[in-house]
Amino acid sequence: MPLSVGVLGYRFMGEAHANALARLPMFFPDAPAVERSVLVGRDETALADAADRLGFERTATDWHDVVDEVDVFYNLGPNHLHVDPSIAALEAGTPVLCEKPLAPTLDGAERMADAAATAGVPTATAFNYRFVPAIQYAKRLLDDGVIGDVRHFRGRYLQDWLVDADAPWSWRNSVDLAGSGALGDLGAHTVDLARFLVGDVERVSGQLRTFVDERPVEDGSETRPVSVDDAYSAQVAFENGAMGTLEGTRMATGRQNDHTIEIEGTRGALSFSLERLNELRVRTEDDRGFQRVLVTDEDDPYLDHWWPPGHVLGWEHTFVHENYEFLSAVADGTAYSPSFADGLAVQRVLDAIARSDERGERVSV
Amino acid sequence: MPLSVGVLGYRFMGEAHANALARLPMFFPDAPAVERSVLVGRDETALADAADRLGFERTATDWHDVVDEVDVFYNLGPNHLHVDPSIAALEAGTPVLCEKPLAPTLDGAERMADAAATAGVPTATAFNYRFVPAIQYAKRLLDDGVIGDVRHFRGRYLQDWLVDADAPWSWRNSVDLAGSGALGDLGAHTVDLARFLVGDVERVSGQLRTFVDERPVEDGSETRPVSVDDAYSAQVAFENGAMGTLEGTRMATGRQNDHTIEIEGTRGALSFSLERLNELRVRTEDDRGFQRVLVTDEDDPYLDHWWPPGHVLGWEHTFVHENYEFLSAVADGTAYSPSFADGLAVQRVLDAIARSDERGERVSV
Amino acid sequence: MPLSVGVLGYRFMGEAHANALARLPMFFPDAPAVERSVLVGRDETALADAADRLGFERTATDWHDVVDEVDVFYNLGPNHLHVDPSIAALEAGTPVLCEKPLAPTLDGAERMADAAATAGVPTATAFNYRFVPAIQYAKRLLDDGVIGDVRHFRGRYLQDWLVDADAPWSWRNSVDLAGSGALGDLGAHTVDLARFLVGDVERVSGQLRTFVDERPVEDGSETRPVSVDDAYSAQVAFENGAMGTLEGTRMATGRQNDHTIEIEGTRGALSFSLERLNELRVRTEDDRGFQRVLVTDEDDPYLDHWWPPGHVLGWEHTFVHENYEFLSAVADGTAYSPSFADGLAVQRVLDAIARSDERGERVSV
Amino acid sequence: MPLSVGVLGYRFMGEAHANALARLPMFFPDAPAVERSVLVGRDETALADAADRLGFERTATDWHDVVDEVDVFYNLGPNHLHVDPSIAALEAGTPVLCEKPLAPTLDGAERMADAAATAGVPTATAFNYRFVPAIQYAKRLLDDGVIGDVRHFRGRYLQDWLVDADAPWSWRNSVDLAGSGALGDLGAHTVDLARFLVGDVERVSGQLRTFVDERPVEDGSETRPVSVDDAYSAQVAFENGAMGTLEGTRMATGRQNDHTIEIEGTRGALSFSLERLNELRVRTEDDRGFQRVLVTDEDDPYLDHWWPPGHVLGWEHTFVHENYEFLSAVADGTAYSPSFADGLAVQRVLDAIARSDERGERVSV
Repeated sequence: MPLSVGVLGYRFMGEAHANALARLPMFFPDAPAVERSVLVGRDETALADAADRLGFERTATDWHDVVDEVDVFYNLGPNHLHVDPSIAALEAGTPVLCEKPLAPTLDGAERMADAAATAGVPTATAFNYRFVPAIQYAKRLLDDGVIGDVRHFRGRYLQDWLVDADAPWSWRNSVDLAGSGALGDLGAHTVDLARFLVGDVERVSGQLRTFVDERPVEDGSETRPVSVDDAYSAQVAFENGAMGTLEGTRMATGRQNDHTIEIEGTRGALSFSLERLNELRVRTEDDRGFQRVLVTDEDDPYLDHWWPPGHVLGWEHTFVHENYEFLSAVADGTAYSPSFADGLAVQRVLDAIARSDERGERVSV
Repeated sequence: MPLSVGVLGYRFMGEAHANALARLPMFFPDAPAVERSVLVGRDETALADAADRLGFERTATDWHDVVDEVDVFYNLGPNHLHVDPSIAALEAGTPVLCEKPLAPTLDGAERMADAAATAGVPTATAFNYRFVPAIQYAKRLLDDGVIGDVRHFRGRYLQDWLVDADAPWSWRNSVDLAGSGALGDLGAHTVDLARFLVGDVERVSGQLRTFVDERPVEDGSETRPVSVDDAYSAQVAFENGAMGTLEGTRMATGRQNDHTIEIEGTRGALSFSLERLNELRVRTEDDRGFQRVLVTDEDDPYLDHWWPPGHVLGWEHTFVHENYEFLSAVADGTAYSPSFADGLAVQRVLDAIARSDERGERVSV
Repeated sequence: MPLSVGVLGYRFMGEAHANALARLPMFFPDAPAVERSVLVGRDETALADAADRLGFERTATDWHDVVDEVDVFYNLGPNHLHVDPSIAALEAGTPVLCEKPLAPTLDGAERMADAAATAGVPTATAFNYRFVPAIQYAKRLLDDGVIGDVRHFRGRYLQDWLVDADAPWSWRNSVDLAGSGALGDLGAHTVDLARFLVGDVERVSGQLRTFVDERPVEDGSETRPVSVDDAYSAQVAFENGAMGTLEGTRMATGRQNDHTIEIEGTRGALSFSLERLNELRVRTEDDRGFQRVLVTDEDDPYLDHWWPPGHVLGWEHTFVHENYEFLSAVADGTAYSPSFADGLAVQRVLDAIARSDERGERVSV
Repeated sequence: MPLSVGVLGYRFMGEAHANALARLPMFFPDAPAVERSVLVGRDETALADAADRLGFERTATDWHDVVDEVDVFYNLGPNHLHVDPSIAALEAGTPVLCEKPLAPTLDGAERMADAAATAGVPTATAFNYRFVPAIQYAKRLLDDGVIGDVRHFRGRYLQDWLVDADAPWSWRNSVDLAGSGALGDLGAHTVDLARFLVGDVERVSGQLRTFVDERPVEDGSETRPVSVDDAYSAQVAFENGAMGTLEGTRMATGRQNDHTIEIEGTRGALSFSLERLNELRVRTEDDRGFQRVLVTDEDDPYLDHWWPPGHVLGWEHTFVHENYEFLSAVADGTAYSPSFADGLAVQRVLDAIARSDERGERVSV
């Protein structure tokens, strides 16, 4: 019996996950069989079109009706819709994958993690960048001691889609709908990779900034206040003694989607950029400079499923890998990471950054 | 009624095209509907497995039975199988897409192009690199005069999978099965892009080289002669007065799949590398240096079908674009390029390069 | 009458400035004539050798005897020798160029700046990176409005010469001799460029770290404590509203001398790395990507004094430009920047970073 | 007694060598002492100014008077002045350094090499790029077997100063004054590095091209014919079995001084670009990608004479190294390479390229 999947949300993330589900059988034949059962949304016409194009069997306009009918629930809606449907699904014993950040507030995230613990089913916070082969390969090098003990972590996520003060207002600019701005949207990814690659964060200092205070709505009829940060920075101390600097912004003119991770340890170093996601720069102890490694060899993470060496993957492949791992965990009843607990751990760091900014103090996580 | 597609070949290229067909409905909803009808091969077990995984309705072991039963025939077999099945399909009035190089010999390519002309149906030589968005964008800049009149073309395709003298022999090392080595395999792509971006080639000088004369078969039981080139180079004069240098090799230690195109004109310049296929380096008349352009904006070629700016595509997307264009031409009865005539034009250049090498003379195409 | 120059210090910085003085006549014929008069140091043998090689007329072992005998005094000794000789020279009415950081402590820097104000003669804090042509060109673009209002500044200076825990102890590891570690040594440069390119800093949060607590002396006979930071980070708010992140470390495995500056504004963006100091990456409003500009054209800053376009300069050229500007100011009695006042302004920021780290609070400069 | 040096030519190359001579004592204290004795030119006013600025003791307007009066003769004039003064100096027993290409014609180069052999004194053809530390380091890696047997050499020298059809005519556009265009000016450097790093060339095919047939003189009063090539390409077979492609052009829009060398061998690979001359990309057998090596360590070639690791050198430093080696050979009476014999060997290759282009045939060197 294939797993039936119910999906809330049919825009950017809905399409990314639907595509991932559709590609599993050809490239991951050992993945559990999956049915795209039901697509959930409010606008019936748009929803019907999307369901047709994305290959869903039916649609629903109320998530309450769905969360206990499906084998797996994907919560891909805007942040303010993360909490209630996810908890309802968990209360129905349905495994949940939820987009990041886990919740608009720390309280919401805690309730979600609690519900996950109570339900005892696999959960996922959709930090898809863990599933970039180059990031998995970085993790492998770190685990193998090639980098040694980490001393420095540098993570920054630079985008430029709000540089123009006249770029239209969206839910991502509202504290009520999104919880935070660049901090939650971009910083969540960076903090997750920091935890994945280096370890837990102990203390943070944070700085948030809103450069443009209000923006016109799409049709230009009015302006609305921007109640979230356009950019954040943070400096962090990891539990293992490493130090780090984080930054995220939607105001970095000329940087479209530049998520850069740099790590230096006692023996080696790593560098990664999302705009060149097939590459990892690696410096091992015997090297005189950083090697530019094309992470597309057969024994690289997930690469045996795809093409011969040198035939590069794209952004969307991270979702295929993520769905493969999560659905396998659901089918096998095994643990999955990054789970809701990981999503909460990230949220605690983000919350500490925001508190530090408010108080002007260093804050423990 | 969906178009029924019959596909000969189920390995690397078979998978690349099957994936492309599978992805069209979600991302190119205006593409004609397609049925993966029949997969053709010789090894019944492997074939059945492949058909199952790649989503074909049935299998066949004799292409003769297939070429007139389907609406479109894809010839994705090794080079020595390009000629006869393609001609048979055309004689049955079936449009054909054939992998490159069009044929192992110039004579074969001429017969295929003749058959295409007689049949009057769309044909495709599968030069998928024309369908990289960055290459399409380069073409746009050239057509718009941003580069001016082209003076220099530099195309090189560097791979390293045969560096090791003990790398196993395959059909790609046999003149009977492949026709040529790096020249046909890699040079065909480079010459096609030269024609696409700059124009027809008038004269060439060529140099071919085989570095390793024999190789062990896979199981090590014997060695077989390498009867094709490991590497080629050429210098060319284009009809429009530009000059060019070409190179292709399977012996370029450290270069896995590095297809680089550089063009300089009277007003600007371009540079592209397949290992970073989302990028085009562009220098316009007003610039002080090359711009690194991430060709992922909504108004970039094919990008409105995919993800937001900065979310990069992979190698396989070129096949989706190629299949979209070819199948649309089949459905609409419109012209398609690169056709068999284009494949033949490329073959003439490759043949001239080989003749020039033999004779030690500059040769007209 | 040539200006007589007395120089305290004959190692790394002594050589860099002596070379600069020696090269002025050939490349900057309008620079004031200069005599390398006297070289000051303690080890008479080493001093004599250095004076001979560096072209000084005589030597002296006591700076007290020198500061009022020369027309210009260069203080290139270790940090703990910056204060007294510089003040003595100023009290004698002698213009002074002092290496960075201006002093080991804020108090020392304040006294030096006071002495400079009282003396009313030109002073220089030797922030030579202002005189990289690419940095001067960046300043020109900022002044011309090409970048718009700055929103983001990112400055990091990564070195790796202390990665090895057995790398020998030197005066740079002593708070008494150096004042601070990476903060003063590397951070001083970064803060100076931040002030030069963006403006004054209003508030900072800082983080300092010492990874290796003691180190062996050169001959291995004993270990000494490391009483300064190995690395620092900071996040800053500029008076004009821009936000910034700073970092400096001697522990960045694989980074030898990587001083990177990135700026994003409302209209454009800039990026610079000291390891490729002839280049500036520039994105203007009309660009689709960063241009890699080779700043070697005749109308680029200082380039009319050197070689044709594309013939790159080295690190040492920054000292030639710096000496040219400072000595011209001395000869003409005009103002010079970066002066001791600028050195003090930098010191205030560094001091605030250290205080913030101690207190765990955001601090005003 | 210092060596007295007489120098013919006081423009670009005159300045580059005068600077090198001036810098030797400070950085290469074991170099022989040198006097900049006499500067030779025709325009007495310009000559006197240059001699003053470049530090020459006196001037002369007739080289005949100089060649036997000095200990070393530097011939830095335009190509058509290379032959006679150099031979006259050699006949007087004076060691000669001559700028490249050695002569405008093969016949002239042969006569110069004959004169050098007869004289038995050190001679130098000024292929300064051999003295880039990264190139010396590449040579070391090749000699040490790190790269294995070379299979591929790729050398191209791209400039853009003649892209504009209205760029003024100069002696470099005249076959009588220069002998050839890009071929001799740029190709000479590339062929020398090919010989230095790979070995002697056996056979070539060449292609020359003039894109702009006439150009205005500087004051615009008339146009003169361009009688040399604007660009050349060549494919070569080395005696040791390697194959190579060469290219040089003054028409490569956007490339100011891009001399790129790429080598692939059975075990490793190298890549170098003059625009980033402190770097060498190296791939050894154990690497997964090219290492970007900053060739500025203390044990790198010539680097112990300069600055600490990571403090980059410029283009002009190659002349310091070249002058150091040549003058040391003169002082010690030892052999020097690249000599006139090397200059002649390069010329034979260039001549073969030109002949191949004329005949449309592959040509033996």
